Amino acid sequence: MNYLGVGVSPGNVAVRHHGTISKVVDRRVRVVELVLRCVICWLGVLAAVLIGTDSQVKEIFTIQKRAKFTDMKALVFLVIANGIAASYSLIQALRCAVSMIRGDVLFSKPLAWAIFSGDQAMAYVTLAAVAAAAQSAVFAKLGQPELQWMKICDMYGKYCNQVGEGLASSVLVGLGMAALAPVSAFSLFRLYGEDGKKGKGGGGSG
Amino acid sequence: MNYLGVGVSPGNVAVRHHGTISKVVDRRVRVVELVLRCVICWLGVLAAVLIGTDSQVKEIFTIQKRAKFTDMKALVFLVIANGIAASYSLIQALRCAVSMIRGDVLFSKPLAWAIFSGDQAMAYVTLAAVAAAAQSAVFAKLGQPELQWMKICDMYGKYCNQVGEGLASSVLVGLGMAALAPVSAFSLFRLYGEDGKKGKGGGGSG
Repeated sequence: MNYLGVGVSPGNVAVRHHGTISKVVDRRVRVVELVLRCVICWLGVLAAVLIGTDSQVKEIFTIQKRAKFTDMKALVFLVIANGIAASYSLIQALRCAVSMIRGDVLFSKPLAWAIFSGDQAMAYVTLAAVAAAAQSAVFAKLGQPELQWMKICDMYGKYCNQVGEGLASSVLVGLGMAALAPVSAFSLFRLYGEDGKKGKGGGGSG
Repeated sequence: MNYLGVGVSPGNVAVRHHGTISKVVDRRVRVVELVLRCVICWLGVLAAVLIGTDSQVKEIFTIQKRAKFTDMKALVFLVIANGIAASYSLIQALRCAVSMIRGDVLFSKPLAWAIFSGDQAMAYVTLAAVAAAAQSAVFAKLGQPELQWMKICDMYGKYCNQVGEGLASSVLVGLGMAALAPVSAFSLFRLYGEDGKKGKGGGGSG
């Protein structure tokens, strides 16, 4: 069980000292995590709404053409990714807030692994969605003359601007997710160092 | 107090026991890391060469048109990203091999932070490059009828296939980089758990 077999007696002093420092660090990390998750949630909703509600109608001779985000798969993917990121961040922010109020510290390795994996996956998915959408946006804005792909932002200026705002917001979501990676990695992997002391549920401080 | 019921001099036993298991874990992690880095290096070079050397000439009436990777910014970005990933992985693999041969364990926090940050950055850059290139490849393969962007893979079939192979290789590079993230996170953040014991210069293993 206590497979690392650490920290049997090197002392109550060490444990208590360590516990104090650990609590301060814990609180700081938790506050950073909570703030980041709330900001990500808000930006994710903002990006999804900006892109998802964007549309512009253009009349070409007698034909009405409406530009909307479903015309481009990358934007659909981006809206979905932002929606998932926002929901995920909301749930994580709630978990974070609850554990701050109750004052308990994360000692469960499976839960820490789940949070770390979830954060990593969300960071990769969000950044990949942003990259794909940014690539599409570049084609839409500049065209690709070598391939005879024409610019479309000249025609749908207002539409493109709003997509740009949504994209900027999504970039921040991706960066926020990337910033969370070390936070959840810290929460997980220090458990592998502290195993002996804290694995027992902090029983050493009695 | 001595709740684990270990004998008179628990300190020595525990430390020695811990040292042994830690070494086993260390060795395994190091082997996984070395293998992953070598594979990534090889795949990165492969992808860069496949895409960078790809070209196809097509004669349209009397005009010769040559398709090459510089026609598409996303492919240029992908070649560069793969080149950087391969070089970075080579350097890291050498570091890994040297420390395996010399048998020393990573206890320097700044170095561990540098490796962790580097790995994270490489994972994000590679995956973003892959996503952008994949988006371009989808446009090239399927076109975007709503925007009158035509397929170009019908014209440049051989060229597109080779890009596809390079892209597949790049996807593996990205996944490999993502798989390295927990390895370097483990190497870094367990230092924060073992602080009391090993922070003093690894005196415990003697």
